[in-house]
Formats: sequence, C-alpha cells, structure tokens
Amino acid sequence: MIERVVLVGIGTGSLGHMTLDGQAALRSADVILVPRKAEKDDLAEIRLKLLERAGVSARVAFFDYPVRDEALPYLERVERWHDEIATRWTAAAGDAAEIALLVWGDPSFYDSTMRIAARLVPVGAVRVIPGITAVQALTAAHGVPLNTVNGRILVTTGRRLRDGGWPEGAESVVVVLDGECSFSRLTGQGLRIWWGAFLGMPEEILLSGPLDEVSPRIVEAREAARARHGWVMDTYLMRKS
Amino acid sequence: MIERVVLVGIGTGSLGHMTLDGQAALRSADVILVPRKAEKDDLAEIRLKLLERAGVSARVAFFDYPVRDEALPYLERVERWHDEIATRWTAAAGDAAEIALLVWGDPSFYDSTMRIAARLVPVGAVRVIPGITAVQALTAAHGVPLNTVNGRILVTTGRRLRDGGWPEGAESVVVVLDGECSFSRLTGQGLRIWWGAFLGMPEEILLSGPLDEVSPRIVEAREAARARHGWVMDTYLMRKS
Repeated sequence: MIERVVLVGIGTGSLGHMTLDGQAALRSADVILVPRKAEKDDLAEIRLKLLERAGVSARVAFFDYPVRDEALPYLERVERWHDEIATRWTAAAGDAAEIALLVWGDPSFYDSTMRIAARLVPVGAVRVIPGITAVQALTAAHGVPLNTVNGRILVTTGRRLRDGGWPEGAESVVVVLDGECSFSRLTGQGLRIWWGAFLGMPEEILLSGPLDEVSPRIVEAREAARARHGWVMDTYLMRKS
Repeated sequence: MIERVVLVGIGTGSLGHMTLDGQAALRSADVILVPRKAEKDDLAEIRLKLLERAGVSARVAFFDYPVRDEALPYLERVERWHDEIATRWTAAAGDAAEIALLVWGDPSFYDSTMRIAARLVPVGAVRVIPGITAVQALTAAHGVPLNTVNGRILVTTGRRLRDGGWPEGAESVVVVLDGECSFSRLTGQGLRIWWGAFLGMPEEILLSGPLDEVSPRIVEAREAARARHGWVMDTYLMRKS
C-alpha cells in the first residue's frame, strides 16, 4: 500500500542537472520505480546510469507503460492512461510504503507523474523536488534570456501551435511536446528561433537564427538525429526579431 | 581584463536547490563576485553562507549596486543601470580573467546578469548553469502542476498584469516581479491562486485557494513578512477555477 510518493526532477539526462535535494532524496529512498524502455527511447537506461553515478543504492522496481487507446478522445485517453499507470505503480511497489520516481525535467512542467501520484495518495503525501527543465537547458546552452526586459513568456505545445499559429500579441514563445516541427509553418513572419535536441546530453544539438533560414536545417537535423538514435526530444524558443 | 563569465543559477536560497554542475563550477572558480547588501535584503549574506556550506573556497570580491536613475524612462533606466554594473564588475574583478556570479533562480529567467555579462564578453565566453526558479519552488511546494493537460502557460510581470488585467484567453498565469499585490485587482473573476514567499527558505510562506477568499490574507501575510524581514520576495500562479 503506497502511502507517500517522492517525485524527483532529475533534469534532462545530465548528472550535473541533479540538485543536492534530489540526490539526497534518491539516496534515502526505499524503492525507486523506473519505467522500462518505452518505444525506442533510451530513457530507462539513462535513468539507471544516473542512479549509479549519483551513488544511489535503493531497490529499483520496474514497471511497463501501458499502451494508449488511440480510439479515445485526447483528454479521456490521457485520463485512462494515467489510471492504468497508477495501477502498475501499485503492483510494482509491492509492500513499500514510500516510492520515489525520477522525473525527466521538473515534475510540475508538462509531466504527468504528479497527476498519476494524485490517484494514489493525497496531495500532502506527495513530495515534489524541482529539476532543471529542457527549456532551461536550452536557454543556458544558447546563452539567451527566456524573456525580454519586462516581457511576457508564453509556453505552449506543438499541438496548440499547429492549431493556432503564432499566438496573438505573443513576445517570447516556448514550444514543448512538438513531434511535428510545427515551427516550420511560421516562416515569413520575421521570427527568430533557438532550437535544441538532447539538451544536456552528450548528443546535444543546437541551432539558432532567423526562422526562415534555419527552419529547413532544423527539420533535417531532427530527422537525422531520430534516424541515428531511434528517438529525439527537442524544444525551442521563438521571438519576433 | 575579464575574458570569461560563469553565471551559476543557485535556486532560491536553499542549498538543496544547488545542482552538481553549479557546485562544481563554484568550486573551480577563481573569483566569485558578490553584490553587497542591497537595500534591506539579506541576499548577500545568504549567498556567502551558501558558498560556505557548498564547500567553495574561491576568492570573493564584492561590488555595490549603483542607484537607478528614477528620472529616466523605464527601459533606458535599466540599460544605464546594466552599463554601470558592468563597470563595477570590471573594477571588482581586478586582474582575474574569469569571474563567476551566483544568480538567484535561473540566469535565463527574469534576471539581468546575462545582459550585463554581454557588455563585457562575447556570448560564447559566457557559461550559463541553469538553476531552480522561484516558480519551480512554488509549484513544488504546493504540489501543483504549472500547466493543465496540453495547456498553455503565460509568464508575466506585476507591472504588465497591473496595466492589462487578466490576459485574454490565458489559462495558467504566472506572475513575477510584483511588488504591489496586483492579483488583488483580479477578484470576482473565478480565479484560483497559489502564492508563495521566501520559497525554499526556512521563512517560506504558502497560501492558496479561491482568489476572492485568499487575496486579503495574502496581502496581509506579505505585509507582515516585509515588516518582519525588511524585504520580501514572492511569486504566484493563477488559473480560472
């Protein structure tokens, strides 16, 4: 019976992103739940290596991600998927009262782990340890501020950008969860882009410049990276230039 | 002559926010520039304690923040202020070729250090190490996701919120740099707020609930905290409920 859940934001695959709080929480964990390799990504392996390099000796229990029911509407599909993951956490935890999970980036930022935990325990029984997001790794790597002076930042998803185009009145726009290079539909609007894939990892790729100019190069680099690794994770920032 | 600048995001005052990259960069720094106590805040002291607790023995050089010329228009005032800080960094650095600075939160997120560094060295000579922002400390402490599922996040400043009210079409709104409790102007719109001050510090204060109900309590808590400490740093998230 799970009574407490610790969600540790681990950053984006670099041990250097780990915070001292995160490291301490993992070192004192009873059981750490790790998803088995999902689809083609290397994330399970990266997580295990990170635990080893961070000097964590807690018991690791594996669980498999269920398959999403593509026949359902988007939000319902997500809800059912979270329900099923919660069930699998319970099974994997065995008799452990407290479980810890390594969350890519930050548990509060475009991640479902907090919503899954809420199915098992009350909010007060979830401890969240923030971590470096891919967006932070992006701006750090490019050496670019996320915002202009006194400016606003809009964070949106690839899906929303595809459906709505450049958001009206937007200044700095960050796009996450974009599997379809939605930026390539926004050429001809005087935009500048800072793009990155595998941020913080040895395979990191960075490209930036006027969108009209670099858009085809990003599409190409992204495709080549996906062909090479079997998967790709990327994010980007855009501004009117 | 400064040739390289290392900007280390240190989080919001808790040593636990420090990343392994940040710790390593500070430990290998030649000179760390620390601003002297500015106005009434304790930030200089917190920075020095953090260095000590992180096992950093680098030489510390102090500089004073210049006074902003309130007679100038906002953006020009900021530009001149950054110019003057860059001059003071140079004076404080002496003959050091590389300087490091401890940046509150993340150097890319509503912070001017990156813009000041750009006055001294080319962008390729600035190394940025991301850190946990007050916004991340806020959502972690409340155990609340920053975004709704597939939702957008708008980050804005107190000044912008004051001038423009609830941003049209906004979903999750994060407000930074608000010295005037601008949320209190947004009651009667069915909003929910998650507020926090001194996030990550022993003095942390958290309040959340329907805005109409908690707004006066936040104003009061903020005033009491400011009276007690001489300063206050806070941030908040709002959503339509």
